[in-house]
Order: sequence, then structure tokens, then C-alpha cells
Amino acid sequence: MSSSGLAPSNLAPFELAPWRSPLSRALHRNRAQPFCRFLQLATLRSDGWPANRTVVFRGFRAETNQLMFICDRRSEKIDQIQQNPKAEACWYFTKTREQFRLRGQLIAITADTSTAILIETRRQLWQKISDKAQLQFVWPQPKAIRTEKSDFSPPPPDAQTPPDTFCALLLVPEAVDYLSLRGEPQDRIIYYLSGKKTAESSWAYQTVNP
Amino acid sequence: MSSSGLAPSNLAPFELAPWRSPLSRALHRNRAQPFCRFLQLATLRSDGWPANRTVVFRGFRAETNQLMFICDRRSEKIDQIQQNPKAEACWYFTKTREQFRLRGQLIAITADTSTAILIETRRQLWQKISDKAQLQFVWPQPKAIRTEKSDFSPPPPDAQTPPDTFCALLLVPEAVDYLSLRGEPQDRIIYYLSGKKTAESSWAYQTVNP
Repeated sequence: MSSSGLAPSNLAPFELAPWRSPLSRALHRNRAQPFCRFLQLATLRSDGWPANRTVVFRGFRAETNQLMFICDRRSEKIDQIQQNPKAEACWYFTKTREQFRLRGQLIAITADTSTAILIETRRQLWQKISDKAQLQFVWPQPKAIRTEKSDFSPPPPDAQTPPDTFCALLLVPEAVDYLSLRGEPQDRIIYYLSGKKTAESSWAYQTVNP
Repeated sequence: MSSSGLAPSNLAPFELAPWRSPLSRALHRNRAQPFCRFLQLATLRSDGWPANRTVVFRGFRAETNQLMFICDRRSEKIDQIQQNPKAEACWYFTKTREQFRLRGQLIAITADTSTAILIETRRQLWQKISDKAQLQFVWPQPKAIRTEKSDFSPPPPDAQTPPDTFCALLLVPEAVDYLSLRGEPQDRIIYYLSGKKTAESSWAYQTVNP
């Protein structure tokens, strides 16, 4: 991953991708349901199987079209991503009956990340989550054989500085497939990067059959 | 795929896998939300990218632990599955805050399928769906450049006999990861096949850290 992918403003002024507008509208119209920020993220396991799990959308990284998530360094997806960053997120909005499929590469921001702007992104995400959410990052090893209940009441981590177990994930979309089930027939739009992959301003789109 | 995978009753009396009980309970407790039957299915594209989309659960195939879905022969996932049947479904229940990750191989039942019991499964699934859902299988080519609205009002297909575009999908789970966010800490159970993959009666499970 070249640094230009992380700082598109060096290439061109940042422009909102055209799929941001229908996505913002969907988030707004479904806002009464807290789970409207839950989506399913598919990645590739090293054994050749796909993996798929629910993640929570934590907003867009400032001045980019990159979706932010958080996860535990000890979870399998960090190793999966570092071997193969290809992913597709599927985001279904139950109230408005809209689906966004966002395909792109994932970037893991760990304690080892040395890019200043990403270190700051990780720190901000850590400070935004609740005390209860922070505590999970000092819980015992995920997916290990179940340990004692008392192990889940450790001293809380530093509220300002993320522990090594705390990671941020960025999804950098390259193609977005939007489907609205409310149309008669349903509406479907394919958004894609028509130029260089790192030039975020070159999005195009095509209205297609559902 | 050997035929034994399709007719486990030849091997041993059918037994409900142990994850069927929490899944049935989740379906029952979330039944007020029609979208509780929607889940996200991750597969592999031939170009090495994961694909992820929402599908509708159509019940279990009788006397098996196989989940049934329907899809259009012209959709990309049929070709994906025939090249590589590996899949992981992620099923999140919003009311009870439970997630099931079901990993297994997919079997596509198309117009070319010659196994009598599967031909019957496909026919039954066709007859169960609404007239409106049936009509979509004679609509113009999915994902082609958008055609005229009048193209979406074709003569309805035969209500009894599925058209060639109608496919059924079976997901044959080999491992299930169950997570309940309501526990303090959350509850997590990994279910897996401990013996031969085709012996559906050999499920084991382990309680693990969330």
C-alpha cells in the first residue's frame, strides 16, 4: 500500500464519492435503529475459506472515503488482513430496505503503525469508545477455552492511550453496488473507480438492472 | 461432493446439530421482525476477491442440517459456487443481539441437477414463493445496463414448474460460531464436526472466551 492511498489530498482535493450521498441518507433514515451501523465484513482466511462477521461502522476517516472499524489485535481478522487485504462489506438497512456492497482493501492500524496521521486516527477511535468497550481489550484471549468470570474484571486500561490489543481498520472502497428493494422494479447502481485506484476523485457509476 | 453428503440418512439416523436449538430460539424470539430471516453470505470470486450479499433463509432441507436459499442462475454467485463452494454465512439477530457464523460448502441446485430428491427440493421452493417473487426470474438480465421499465412486466412464468433461471442453494455447515452479546461477558460457543465431514451426527462444541 503506497502512502498516496492514505493521503489522497496530496494528489487532488478530496471529493465525496458519489455513493456517500445515498449512504448518508440511509444512515439518517434508519437512525432510530442503533443496529443500522452494523454491517457484515467478508475477508479471506489463509486456508482459502471466506470469513464473515458483523462489525460496527465508526464513521469515515476525515477527508477520505475510508470506512473506519475497530477490532482486537488478537482476533483472526488482523492476521487475515495482513496476508490478504481484499474485503467486501455488505450493509443492509432494514427500515429502508437498501443494501450497499462495498468492495475494497483493508488497512489495519495497529500499535506498530508509524504513519502519524494513522496513529492519531487510532488514538481518537480509542478515546471515543465507552469504558465498557475499552475494558474488552484487556479481557482474556478471545476464542480461547472459556476462562473464569473473574478474569473479565481486570483493572481498566488507560482511557487516553490505546493498549496494544486495540486496532483500527480502514476499508478503502474500489467498487460499490447499491440496491434499493423499494423500487418497482428495484433500483440498482454500480459505482466504480474509473481511473487510477488511488485517485479518489475518479468515481463513475452506471444504473443497472436489479 | 459425494452423494452421501446429500443423503445423510444412508449413513446414520438424522440428528439435529446442537446449534439448531439456539438458532431456532433466535428465529422464534426475533420473529416480529420479518428481516430476521435475512443473513449475509460470503463466497469467493474467481478473481480472488471475497463477495458478500444478503440472502433470505428459506428453511432447512427436510431431515438435514442444510440451510436453503434461492437465487437467479444469472447471478454471479452461481458461477462462483461452481468454481469454489466454500462459504461463510453471518446471521445477526438484532432484537436478541445474537450472531451465528455458519461455515460450510454450498451446493447449487439448478435445472441441470439430476438427483431426484434435489429436483423436488427446487420445485417445492419455487412453488412456495409469491407470484411477485416468481416474476423476477423472467426479468431482464441482472446487472446489465438498465433496460426499459416495460421489460419488467413480462408474462408470468409457470407457477408450478421452475424456469431455468431459478436455482436453489444449500449451505452444508461444517463449523458454527455462536456469539450472544447479552452475556456479561458475552457468551460464545464454537460448534464443529469432530468426525467425518459427511457424518452429520458427529457435532461437538466448546465454550470459549468472547
